[in-house]
Amino acid sequence: MELVPGNSLITATPEEGRALAVKLARLSVKATQPDGDVRQRLRPVYGENADSLIAVAQVVATEFATIAAANGYWR
Amino acid sequence: MELVPGNSLITATPEEGRALAVKLARLSVKATQPDGDVRQRLRPVYGENADSLIAVAQVVATEFATIAAANGYWR
Amino acid sequence: MELVPGNSLITATPEEGRALAVKLARLSVKATQPDGDVRQRLRPVYGENADSLIAVAQVVATEFATIAAANGYWR
Amino acid sequence: MELVPGNSLITATPEEGRALAVKLARLSVKATQPDGDVRQRLRPVYGENADSLIAVAQVVATEFATIAAANGYWR
Amino acid sequence: MELVPGNSLITATPEEGRALAVKLARLSVKATQPDGDVRQRLRPVYGENADSLIAVAQVVATEFATIAAANGYWR
Amino acid sequence: MELVPGNSLITATPEEGRALAVKLARLSVKATQPDGDVRQRLRPVYGENADSLIAVAQVVATEFATIAAANGYWR
Repeated sequence: MELVPGNSLITATPEEGRALAVKLARLSVKATQPDGDVRQRLRPVYGENADSLIAVAQVVATEFATIAAANGYWR
Repeated sequence: MELVPGNSLITATPEEGRALAVKLARLSVKATQPDGDVRQRLRPVYGENADSLIAVAQVVATEFATIAAANGYWR
Repeated sequence: MELVPGNSLITATPEEGRALAVKLARLSVKATQPDGDVRQRLRPVYGENADSLIAVAQVVATEFATIAAANGYWR
Repeated sequence: MELVPGNSLITATPEEGRALAVKLARLSVKATQPDGDVRQRLRPVYGENADSLIAVAQVVATEFATIAAANGYWR
Repeated sequence: MELVPGNSLITATPEEGRALAVKLARLSVKATQPDGDVRQRLRPVYGENADSLIAVAQVVATEFATIAAANGYWR
Repeated sequence: MELVPGNSLITATPEEGRALAVKLARLSVKATQPDGDVRQRLRPVYGENADSLIAVAQVVATEFATIAAANGYWR
């Protein structure tokens, strides 16, 4: 199972870096729960729960911090 | 869907950097839950829940750490 | 709404840096919930809940990490 | 009990670094709960709980940040 | 109210740095809830709750990361 | 009460660094709840709770990030 799309943290722009962060977070969940049906069943659960959505945002923020540092903050 | 407004982490001031952090956090939630009606319905849920508000502040703090580092802390 | 008092992360001392971290955390909550009455109503809720108080401390710790780095740890 | 497979944080690629992060997170749980039967019994509990899966992703993101820094972000 | 004992992050040893991290975490809670009676009443609540104790340890770990960096890891 | 075994963050290997991270996390809990009987009573509570085990892993990951940086990632 692919954990890092393109096997690189380097992206051309912050936007692409952010998309990678979102993708890494999702692939992390997939690595822990490979069953697509289960993940599909859980989608409306966290998708309509404020605290779950905030917790996802926390994961994305942590992944993005790593990717941004990897890219020298695209300065 | 735009994840990083202006596709840059560079801002003129800490205040702008902070506003960007708040925006990134919100766009993260939008990326996970694109349905505006659902997000609107959840607003009063997290907006009137102390722990949810604190969790949002945690996401903003994490995003701001990245943006502040990107801007050399506006020294 | 002001997000960063004084629009700077630079403080003379760790004590001032810490006070700024506490203030940034509170302004984050205010940015998410601008209604002062709601925030006032929630005060006793989180103020008398151990987990909420710990979660606030986590936000302050994260904000302080950024401010301390910005100030070269006041070495 | 082995905590760091290969006793090194250095990996050839981000993909391997990510796999190491997932492994470190799991070994952390094992270090806290060595009983395999208990961990096995808990698998469906967190595996089918959105918030638990998100919390695991948060641990992986934090471990990955360390491993990515260790590897100079595989630049 | 004092937020940073000694108004410095610099300590002679990791042990002192760790003690400072524990102290900063506690002073954070005090800054949010200045009422000593309330904090005293909450002590057995979080003191006998596994998740609360773990959450306190998370705050200490975050504070310690800042203090350790401030002291060049006491190398 | 000892908070940092050996009063140093420097270890020979990542494995030892990881063991130190686990130890620091446990000593943090001990610093907050010195009563060994209480901690013993709580062991099966968090030891058989998926979310508690994940939260412990999050603390270890945060401590390890500090220790790994202290050791230059054992490069």
